[in-house]
Amino acid sequence: MRTDLERFFNPRSIAIIGASQDFGTISGQPFKHLQSHGYAGTLYPVNPRYAQVGGVKCYPSLAELPETPDLVLILVNASRVTDMLRQCGAKGVPYVIIFSSGFSEVGGGGVSLQQELAAIAREHDIGVIGPNCQGMINVADGVFAGFGSVFSSDYEPGPVSMVSQSGGFGFSVMNLSSKDGGLGFRQMVTTGNEIGVSTLDFIEYFIRDPKTEIIAGYVEGLKDAHRLIEVGEKALQAGKPVLMWKVGNTEQGQRAAASHTANLGGAMALYRAAFRQKGIIQVDDIQDVVDYGRAFRSKRLPKGNRLAIITISGGAGILMTDEIVAGGMTLAQLAPGTLEKLREFIPSFGSLLNPVDVTAAIFNDLTLINRTLQTIIDDPGVDCVAMINASLQGDLANTIAGEIVAVAKKTDKPVFLSWSARDVLAQEAYAQLDGALIPHYKSPVRCGRALAAVWWYADAKRRNEVQRSEKPLVLEGRAARNILQGRTADVAEYDAKRILAEYGIPVTQEALALSADEALKAAKRIGYPVAIKIQSPDIPHKTEAKAVRLGITDDAALRAGFDEVIANAKAYKADAKIEGVLVQEMVKGGTEAILGVTNDPLFGPAVMFGLGGIFAEVLKDVSFRLAPVTKSVAREMIEEIKGYPVLAGARGQAPADIDALADAIVKLSALAIDLKDSLAELDINPLFVMEKGKGVKAADALIKPKALK
Amino acid sequence: MRTDLERFFNPRSIAIIGASQDFGTISGQPFKHLQSHGYAGTLYPVNPRYAQVGGVKCYPSLAELPETPDLVLILVNASRVTDMLRQCGAKGVPYVIIFSSGFSEVGGGGVSLQQELAAIAREHDIGVIGPNCQGMINVADGVFAGFGSVFSSDYEPGPVSMVSQSGGFGFSVMNLSSKDGGLGFRQMVTTGNEIGVSTLDFIEYFIRDPKTEIIAGYVEGLKDAHRLIEVGEKALQAGKPVLMWKVGNTEQGQRAAASHTANLGGAMALYRAAFRQKGIIQVDDIQDVVDYGRAFRSKRLPKGNRLAIITISGGAGILMTDEIVAGGMTLAQLAPGTLEKLREFIPSFGSLLNPVDVTAAIFNDLTLINRTLQTIIDDPGVDCVAMINASLQGDLANTIAGEIVAVAKKTDKPVFLSWSARDVLAQEAYAQLDGALIPHYKSPVRCGRALAAVWWYADAKRRNEVQRSEKPLVLEGRAARNILQGRTADVAEYDAKRILAEYGIPVTQEALALSADEALKAAKRIGYPVAIKIQSPDIPHKTEAKAVRLGITDDAALRAGFDEVIANAKAYKADAKIEGVLVQEMVKGGTEAILGVTNDPLFGPAVMFGLGGIFAEVLKDVSFRLAPVTKSVAREMIEEIKGYPVLAGARGQAPADIDALADAIVKLSALAIDLKDSLAELDINPLFVMEKGKGVKAADALIKPKALK
Repeated sequence: MRTDLERFFNPRSIAIIGASQDFGTISGQPFKHLQSHGYAGTLYPVNPRYAQVGGVKCYPSLAELPETPDLVLILVNASRVTDMLRQCGAKGVPYVIIFSSGFSEVGGGGVSLQQELAAIAREHDIGVIGPNCQGMINVADGVFAGFGSVFSSDYEPGPVSMVSQSGGFGFSVMNLSSKDGGLGFRQMVTTGNEIGVSTLDFIEYFIRDPKTEIIAGYVEGLKDAHRLIEVGEKALQAGKPVLMWKVGNTEQGQRAAASHTANLGGAMALYRAAFRQKGIIQVDDIQDVVDYGRAFRSKRLPKGNRLAIITISGGAGILMTDEIVAGGMTLAQLAPGTLEKLREFIPSFGSLLNPVDVTAAIFNDLTLINRTLQTIIDDPGVDCVAMINASLQGDLANTIAGEIVAVAKKTDKPVFLSWSARDVLAQEAYAQLDGALIPHYKSPVRCGRALAAVWWYADAKRRNEVQRSEKPLVLEGRAARNILQGRTADVAEYDAKRILAEYGIPVTQEALALSADEALKAAKRIGYPVAIKIQSPDIPHKTEAKAVRLGITDDAALRAGFDEVIANAKAYKADAKIEGVLVQEMVKGGTEAILGVTNDPLFGPAVMFGLGGIFAEVLKDVSFRLAPVTKSVAREMIEEIKGYPVLAGARGQAPADIDALADAIVKLSALAIDLKDSLAELDINPLFVMEKGKGVKAADALIKPKALK
Repeated sequence: MRTDLERFFNPRSIAIIGASQDFGTISGQPFKHLQSHGYAGTLYPVNPRYAQVGGVKCYPSLAELPETPDLVLILVNASRVTDMLRQCGAKGVPYVIIFSSGFSEVGGGGVSLQQELAAIAREHDIGVIGPNCQGMINVADGVFAGFGSVFSSDYEPGPVSMVSQSGGFGFSVMNLSSKDGGLGFRQMVTTGNEIGVSTLDFIEYFIRDPKTEIIAGYVEGLKDAHRLIEVGEKALQAGKPVLMWKVGNTEQGQRAAASHTANLGGAMALYRAAFRQKGIIQVDDIQDVVDYGRAFRSKRLPKGNRLAIITISGGAGILMTDEIVAGGMTLAQLAPGTLEKLREFIPSFGSLLNPVDVTAAIFNDLTLINRTLQTIIDDPGVDCVAMINASLQGDLANTIAGEIVAVAKKTDKPVFLSWSARDVLAQEAYAQLDGALIPHYKSPVRCGRALAAVWWYADAKRRNEVQRSEKPLVLEGRAARNILQGRTADVAEYDAKRILAEYGIPVTQEALALSADEALKAAKRIGYPVAIKIQSPDIPHKTEAKAVRLGITDDAALRAGFDEVIANAKAYKADAKIEGVLVQEMVKGGTEAILGVTNDPLFGPAVMFGLGGIFAEVLKDVSFRLAPVTKSVAREMIEEIKGYPVLAGARGQAPADIDALADAIVKLSALAIDLKDSLAELDINPLFVMEKGKGVKAADALIKPKALK
């Protein structure tokens, strides 16, 4: 795959296979748009039916071109695309955009046709963009290689580069942002069915591209999702925020995704985990891209989550508070000295409690704005400031904007504005703010949400700095590898726990007994009470099979129980292969948790944590992280679930051993990576988390090996 | 309180106390705005300092006016307001807007000053609006009685009437909606600290006002929240949707609310319950009011929740799907006959699975739009249709809009559009849609959200029709009333359960024993195993006091346990009043639930339901409804919680007796209403919900009486 994408965005020459003289049609548009926007390189229309297109010589075939173009646009019918792509390969073309539809998105024959395209691309090392896409715009260099109504306008270049799996959406975002949002784009590319150069390839290029400051993506599904963490880390290190619009979040939404670009949407939980791990900002609508983009353009990040709000409208302060609290921020507690100074100029009917309600009265003396803002910015307990100016307009607005710009210049704390005057009524004021890169929003809700987005990113940056100092744990489990090697059947409790033990995860004391006498001997060693459980790779749900007995307190009960669980297991599944009966210590006390590994085909190994029973299974109150998971990340996973208070010591219980739990998660992550070639899924259920200082203990486990290919 | 608010919105004469000749000041603005918008009645400026204001005779005091004005505006300093309000009373003025600030919102002396205002208003039966508000605009009749920048513009009248506790917000919404949203307002009033005419008074008036079609409210807190259900019911019956922007949702947000208008935000859970019960549509930002208002203006409600999406962009279909599914709607399953017809005109690379992706190809033959839309509308399994037109613009857009209008005219199913062309590029197309009242939105997300809002309302309408046929259960508990009469101490388990039993809620078999011998006798009657629990009004948390023993199986253990729980209770609280030891049957099996009553000072009695333990206490996974609760509402409460699958039979368990549970909720609601004068809070925890057909049983309960005043 080609990744020298500078060449793609700025090709010296472009051939257009299937170029039409009718500039209204899809196959006629790219030539027209390239020409009318003043493309500086050479254009080669290719179509055996014409001698020229738009006054430029037209070639009957690619082979007859005088040179190898940097980029080829293919606009012919689906059935002819494979042939054309082969010709590109023969000519040594590095990049090809396939606009044509009729591939995996239509199912049936389209799927195999698309596979053929992918094979040709691999064979000739062609960087294919598409098929089923709408092309690319390099605003900065005036390369408009595509079709659609947005190609008819000119745009001011700006700091945003975007890649979109949907043509319609990508270009709508660019259009709105550039025309109405005052936030220009640098590059915009649509990838459609994405058989070649992927969304993440483009994002990696944008990270390298020195003039891209903000990266945006519209994603239905990533086929190379396992790279998300690595790419996210690079973006974090480069200081470039990535705004990601991931659609297909609900089950019905996912069905739509599958029917559209024939992508499996991937598990949203894993996307969310990756977004959180690397501070990728999730957006939910076109407007969010513009709002958040404007926030990041200011290039100021808060050092903490404490916001001070200055408002002339109490209601607006409440609204913003609701948003920032939902986004993990908090209202700053102003220092006594700050309050004392504010009291000098804020009217008695205002409020000094953050949100500070200065009331419209301060506009009687405009110097007060400067002093109020400065006093609050100077408070060391304030990490960022939002000012709410309601609908102030005209000359007054202009003067106030000037005061705000003057104060904001002297600090590196973020200063955001909620200002709802219509554009035409506060044009000069807004221009002043834009000039100073001070983000402003039409509603306190949008302003609060943008602040929360910036905090989400700043917080991830901080967390990742900690994590970089933690070396991920690497373990090698030789016995485990041997057990799983080539295995297709599930690994039942006894062996599964031996595997856990090899990676240092504490398990219950136990022994596998093949007879009642062996069971008695084991119980004697372990000490009563004990539990017994059938061991069979064919019975993953032992309780359902009534093949478990808990709290056995003496030899007689053990002997009876032994026979009973075997009989029940056979009644449940006559041909079940029975490996024996597990005799196990009864764990006393502790909170039941679940740990798990899912080795996702798109993302690779991920670790899950939740509390036992209903919490995980019914409420889905679990947290995921992609492996490797370090200790600080494991703690985040634990604290993230809604049931966390249960572990921290809710309802008068003693706090649980969270440190040991985090340790077990880290070891499970090391196991997941070590066994990633042979393990598909792993459940530890339950893992007993004992009181603080008393560790954890896995009481049951099940491993599903990766099916052999 | 005056409620003939026609007079308020359309006064024959207005006096302005504190009118200023300086029209730039707050006290100068109302006169100027009334005059410049051509107020048709008589204006009386009142100010001893002037002979005239704006060419109109100015009076030294209200007393000297030649008539009693319908409305007085008070614009003087807070300290002088009580005096002025008294003069209004003496003159017999029906309505007064108090603009002045400096009352409860500043705390301290402002609070008592405000109480004085309220007393004067009551004494003279004056309908007071404010204080601390921004006035009123009656757009339809040109009455602009207030101050602020939005008063300088003219507005087209429209179908929306709004009341707002925040001046800034209310007028911002009106401005945006009228100027940019194409949705005009009829009346707009701000109520500030709301000592007199309340938000709900205005909403009731809007329900009566024949020209108001849509009602909007911006609320920080309702002091008369107990009326919300009744007012909501009237609005439902009148077919007028109520859009409510309730702010102060988070804890920090609520603190801000308290510091601003000195309103306690009220429990958001109860607001949400009332909104759900009466289909009040919650909005979260200015734009929502406009978006939802436009949706309701179409006056079409879906008969069910099944949406068909027609799109030329797959991605947009996914986005809309995510939104509507989150809002409780679903994608319609198209009938085989529909699919067959569609196959005739939709290109093979399109998709017939809903969202139906017709691809841009259908714009080659514009008659196809008509046929596609008609075919889908004709499907009886489709309740409403959304069409996504991406950024189509110009003449093409115009023609397509015409086709859509033609089809939409022939159906009463809602037809919504997502169409993201900028206004200037599709002006005529949008005008055609507006003319036919077809709602259109710039993004599929906003379109989907507006559809979900309409469904929320339509669904509530349907549910309330069912509920109107259910007569709320009315019960009278004489013994219960006697127990609670004048009581200040908590009612402990034994008595609390006698009260439940009187209202027909099943409780465990039990007896109160004063000696070990009595306990043995009771156990004999009930049958072992039994539980024993201390009974003391001073020990509400018996487990914490170690004064509970479960699963006692014989006489000896009972005797020992009896002494032990008494000893432990005394050790826990030496001076606890001990009423005896409760001997109780052990309930076997069943799922633990919690039922409760909170008799909220603002809302009145409300009923709560949740699952036991962590579910309710840590996850707050509970549902609330304001009493009375009928059987169908009780079922909604049960199905609403996230843990519902536990009762329905998750994890291989037998389904629980949901019917008996709903019955208990209905009885508890009757109890809450019967005892509303003497009961503050009630907990049944746990209530055991047995297997289907086996009923429920309250195993413990606690009642907190209303403290005597």
